[in-house]
Amino acid sequence: MLKRYLLAPGPTQVPPEVLLAMATPIIHHRAPEFAELFGEVRKDLQWVFQTNNDVLMLASSGTGAMEGSVANFLSPGDKALCVNGGKFGERWGKICQAFGVQPIEIPVEWGHSVDPQQVADALKKDPSIKAVYVQASETSTGAAHDIKALADIVKPYEGTILVVDAITALGVFDIPTDAWGLDIVVAGSQKAFMLPPGLAFVSVSQKAWGLAEKSKNGAFYFNFKKERDSQRKNQTAYTPAVSMILGLKEVLRLMKTEGLPGMFARQGQLAHALRSAVEAAGLSLFPKGKASDALTVIAAPDGIDGQAVYKNLRVQYGITAAGGQDHLKGKIFRLSHMGYVDTFDVITAMAAVEMVLKGLGHPIQLGSGVAKAQALLMTPQ
Amino acid sequence: MLKRYLLAPGPTQVPPEVLLAMATPIIHHRAPEFAELFGEVRKDLQWVFQTNNDVLMLASSGTGAMEGSVANFLSPGDKALCVNGGKFGERWGKICQAFGVQPIEIPVEWGHSVDPQQVADALKKDPSIKAVYVQASETSTGAAHDIKALADIVKPYEGTILVVDAITALGVFDIPTDAWGLDIVVAGSQKAFMLPPGLAFVSVSQKAWGLAEKSKNGAFYFNFKKERDSQRKNQTAYTPAVSMILGLKEVLRLMKTEGLPGMFARQGQLAHALRSAVEAAGLSLFPKGKASDALTVIAAPDGIDGQAVYKNLRVQYGITAAGGQDHLKGKIFRLSHMGYVDTFDVITAMAAVEMVLKGLGHPIQLGSGVAKAQALLMTPQ
Repeated sequence: MLKRYLLAPGPTQVPPEVLLAMATPIIHHRAPEFAELFGEVRKDLQWVFQTNNDVLMLASSGTGAMEGSVANFLSPGDKALCVNGGKFGERWGKICQAFGVQPIEIPVEWGHSVDPQQVADALKKDPSIKAVYVQASETSTGAAHDIKALADIVKPYEGTILVVDAITALGVFDIPTDAWGLDIVVAGSQKAFMLPPGLAFVSVSQKAWGLAEKSKNGAFYFNFKKERDSQRKNQTAYTPAVSMILGLKEVLRLMKTEGLPGMFARQGQLAHALRSAVEAAGLSLFPKGKASDALTVIAAPDGIDGQAVYKNLRVQYGITAAGGQDHLKGKIFRLSHMGYVDTFDVITAMAAVEMVLKGLGHPIQLGSGVAKAQALLMTPQ
Repeated sequence: MLKRYLLAPGPTQVPPEVLLAMATPIIHHRAPEFAELFGEVRKDLQWVFQTNNDVLMLASSGTGAMEGSVANFLSPGDKALCVNGGKFGERWGKICQAFGVQPIEIPVEWGHSVDPQQVADALKKDPSIKAVYVQASETSTGAAHDIKALADIVKPYEGTILVVDAITALGVFDIPTDAWGLDIVVAGSQKAFMLPPGLAFVSVSQKAWGLAEKSKNGAFYFNFKKERDSQRKNQTAYTPAVSMILGLKEVLRLMKTEGLPGMFARQGQLAHALRSAVEAAGLSLFPKGKASDALTVIAAPDGIDGQAVYKNLRVQYGITAAGGQDHLKGKIFRLSHMGYVDTFDVITAMAAVEMVLKGLGHPIQLGSGVAKAQALLMTPQ
């Protein structure tokens, strides 16, 4: 008998209350009760995004909202600055190319955070750049980029928008859309939103809508203007993922109960505890710049295959984590603490990593990392 | 946000597959599909009980089956030997009194196991004793009684049956009903059966049915002969707990997948690991005789209130364990590893106990017990 533990950087654990809400009977999406539900979650999503902008809901994975964030705003021949510091930064460039947009990539060594000055210099050099695409949290490396600094750089350019992939950031740490002036922010259901995969969210500023008026690209399913006009009337342009939205209502209730500061503090504390535990066990963290609080990326010790760690966690201990992608395959393994995660998820993760590494012949002292996590996660009397 | 962990000695964790099975639509208990379901689980229950005896299912908690194990077999004025080594041993005496049966108690100091010789001597002294009542696992103290030895003692007495409360034993460790010649064995759904509370099981031998023919006690709801006659036709005398039986079918499928030796080995290994971890952390186990593999009972260290440990586990860390009962209140706390439990339940339990005790001012080294559990629970490559 092997119990299953989901500690991957998405999909993440879904609280029982949310699973139950999703198991209630489907309501019809053109019935008044759906409009009421949709209006309620729409308003609460603005609270999570900390914005008065429209927050659109799409029946897709986060990549659908990323595609729409290119296709609806830029035209063939337009130039876009893409911060590429990992698998998801790379994706911005690929989407641009698919829509005839010319990506100007700022390559960032995987594991590092972008130097905002590079973005400032690139914009200064070519003010015709229509958009800057970046990740708040680069899930493939565990590094966070400095979104506030980038927002301050982009803001003065009237014809340029900042588009933030916050798929593994929103709800984990503070990304105040309006306070920082972020034009487009993308999020996904299967991360800190504690839902199964299948729903994407995207907030769009007035500045971005202005750009959308001039876009010559074709967008049908991910037509944000059409969605905006429908969703402002508490409808969706196409059939919405109804059970996901029923679950989302429950998620938002849980989030409001904990509050944004509580959510950020809890996940920040868990991230800090796991990072400290990893180091206490004599292991190295992979990110060289600022680490994202969404996940902990651990460098495989010399002589140990990171993929074997990932595989043994799953096969021997029932824990689904993640390995490395592309050239990081075998070099790292990744554990998440987004969303519905607590002290004992971190202790389970650390205990299992110690056991797997010891099993693979790495000289690690069992309990050394766990003890550090315990010390940092003790609840006051 | 506080996640909930159920590590009490009943109710125990219910596997998701079982929760889902219980959420399927109710079938009618007089419809042919119910008889088919009932026949299947009846047969598989005999496999778990390792018996060819009838295994009756009752819509009640285990105490209902305990009551029936007195009321259906003994008559007012009859004498019964009751091994009383804890809260549940004491219950046998109370049930006997409620039905006019004269209990002859063998008091056993709480935490100890009965000396089988005492039972042998009592039967020799008074062969008119109709039944010997005992616990396989005394849940209030964590001690196990030697059921095989008692069976060997009772077997030669043709007019005496052995009745075993195996509520926290059956499915945890080996209690082979027929091989040991146990006349009545009682079990409950909310222990190693991984179901919610609400269903009791009881196996009855030919020798016991013989005694039942002579019983003058009144039994209506817990009328075992009536249930036997119905259940042999895959019906129940009264309305059965249908969703529980739907869940039980799934439980039995899971149990057959793991196999009885696998179930006993896993729970035995978890019990051994937690006991060893507790001692590695400088704590003392409460049981002085043979410890039951169903739960670990820990003595509260000097100066620490066991009820505070129990309470802080729940309030600070979301873990529901159990405290002590009656004169053991404050002196012990109890953690279970019955049923749907694995390595990380034991690690969570040990980590939390260390954190709570340290929080209460007890000098304990964080990770000291956890490291021992990790070492003992490492899975071979």
